[in-house]
Amino acid sequence: MLQEMTGKPSQIFNFKYFCDKYDIAKSTVSEDIAMAKDALKTSAQGELITISGSLGGVKYVPTISEEMSQIIQEEFCERLTDSTRILGGGFLYTSDIMYDLSFVRNLGRIFVTKFKDFEADYVATVETKGIPLASTIAYMLNLPLVIIRREPKFSEGSTVSINYFSGPDQRVQKMSIAKRAVKPGSKAIVIDDFMRGGGSIKGIREILSEFEIETVATGIAIISAKPEKKKVDSFVHLVTLEEVDDFEKTISVSPNGNIF
Amino acid sequence: MLQEMTGKPSQIFNFKYFCDKYDIAKSTVSEDIAMAKDALKTSAQGELITISGSLGGVKYVPTISEEMSQIIQEEFCERLTDSTRILGGGFLYTSDIMYDLSFVRNLGRIFVTKFKDFEADYVATVETKGIPLASTIAYMLNLPLVIIRREPKFSEGSTVSINYFSGPDQRVQKMSIAKRAVKPGSKAIVIDDFMRGGGSIKGIREILSEFEIETVATGIAIISAKPEKKKVDSFVHLVTLEEVDDFEKTISVSPNGNIF
Repeated sequence: MLQEMTGKPSQIFNFKYFCDKYDIAKSTVSEDIAMAKDALKTSAQGELITISGSLGGVKYVPTISEEMSQIIQEEFCERLTDSTRILGGGFLYTSDIMYDLSFVRNLGRIFVTKFKDFEADYVATVETKGIPLASTIAYMLNLPLVIIRREPKFSEGSTVSINYFSGPDQRVQKMSIAKRAVKPGSKAIVIDDFMRGGGSIKGIREILSEFEIETVATGIAIISAKPEKKKVDSFVHLVTLEEVDDFEKTISVSPNGNIF
Repeated sequence: MLQEMTGKPSQIFNFKYFCDKYDIAKSTVSEDIAMAKDALKTSAQGELITISGSLGGVKYVPTISEEMSQIIQEEFCERLTDSTRILGGGFLYTSDIMYDLSFVRNLGRIFVTKFKDFEADYVATVETKGIPLASTIAYMLNLPLVIIRREPKFSEGSTVSINYFSGPDQRVQKMSIAKRAVKPGSKAIVIDDFMRGGGSIKGIREILSEFEIETVATGIAIISAKPEKKKVDSFVHLVTLEEVDDFEKTISVSPNGNIF
């Protein structure tokens, strides 16, 4: 049972399903689930959450402990402070980390733990580098992923586009979303890999609000300490890029700490 | 043990690790692994593979049965034949399916089963719509993901770009790959969501071969029946889009069948 549930995170299995599948009594299912709950607690691989009511049942959520969250943040900082990452202009090469899916799953579990009770309808991101992280979170929360494009594509059908300002030079950029990708009046969790001034996140929130979609949570893997004043507030980040010294070839990164 | 291994697919755990962690004898670990193998076989959630030798141990691979593969292909066909997907010009809206991570995981398991013994070093894709599928496969095979960009980005460091022809109108398009994303002389599995003439796949193989990277396998979720002659051969697809009738509003899709 646990094996099946962990393969389908955040999907509710009602007790009757297991009774029928394994031809066992409801009391046996309850006992086995209690055992599985304890086993998960011991192995720190997530938790089983029981939902009562007529639509109730049990679901597996790959949450993470406070202690593991801090260990992962520390590992993230360590990987980022490798001086060969420096690209100049305060930029770092981070694709190898953001495309290491085993590590990205751990980053995702921190956001899943934080955002699991927000009752969101979507996980949204803007292409490209945050897509693996957003995909992982969408899978773990059992939510559809929405990928906002830079340019409207024919294969997206009718789209809505906005212009926004982003980057150190405040360039005008474009974002585009497929009309059929979202339902008006719903809620989204916004995920991205990096935030400097907050222009992109502000843009994502704006394009979602064109569809009356409320951004109920925002999770960003890395934020830059500068500029101190961001265009958006209320976001959760994992680590802060304090300083990149192009000349001395040093990088300083700090963990967020206790996120939950 | 199983819980830990399923959370880290394709990662080799040596027996000593489990002996130390749970303070049990090697014979007990062997017995437990034999039991877990049987349990997985019954639940059809993948398999445990034992690797002998000094670097040996056991790894979990989320393979899928021939029967389940065909059921998933049928479900894929059914979802695709919804006439509201028709965008005109033979195009279909498929983002909702390619961004449904729970379903995408099932598609990924088919490719994982097919490609698990290819000893690849990377899973490569070109942005954007195939990224969730490629991410899932990279995670399940424990390989780094390589995302080829349409335009070189500053945050990618030095890049290599190529021009190639693609699309119904054979437009010149560009692809760009970060030099530090790949090591010359390695092997890649190429993944994409859709193939019509094969121009993009040919482009991906070409840009990889600029780094002496051999494409050892190519997996595509949907191929178009037309044009019959593709620019590449030796690929594995899941379903074929036989015809889209814009006027009659009908779509015809067929499953590949026995892929393994």
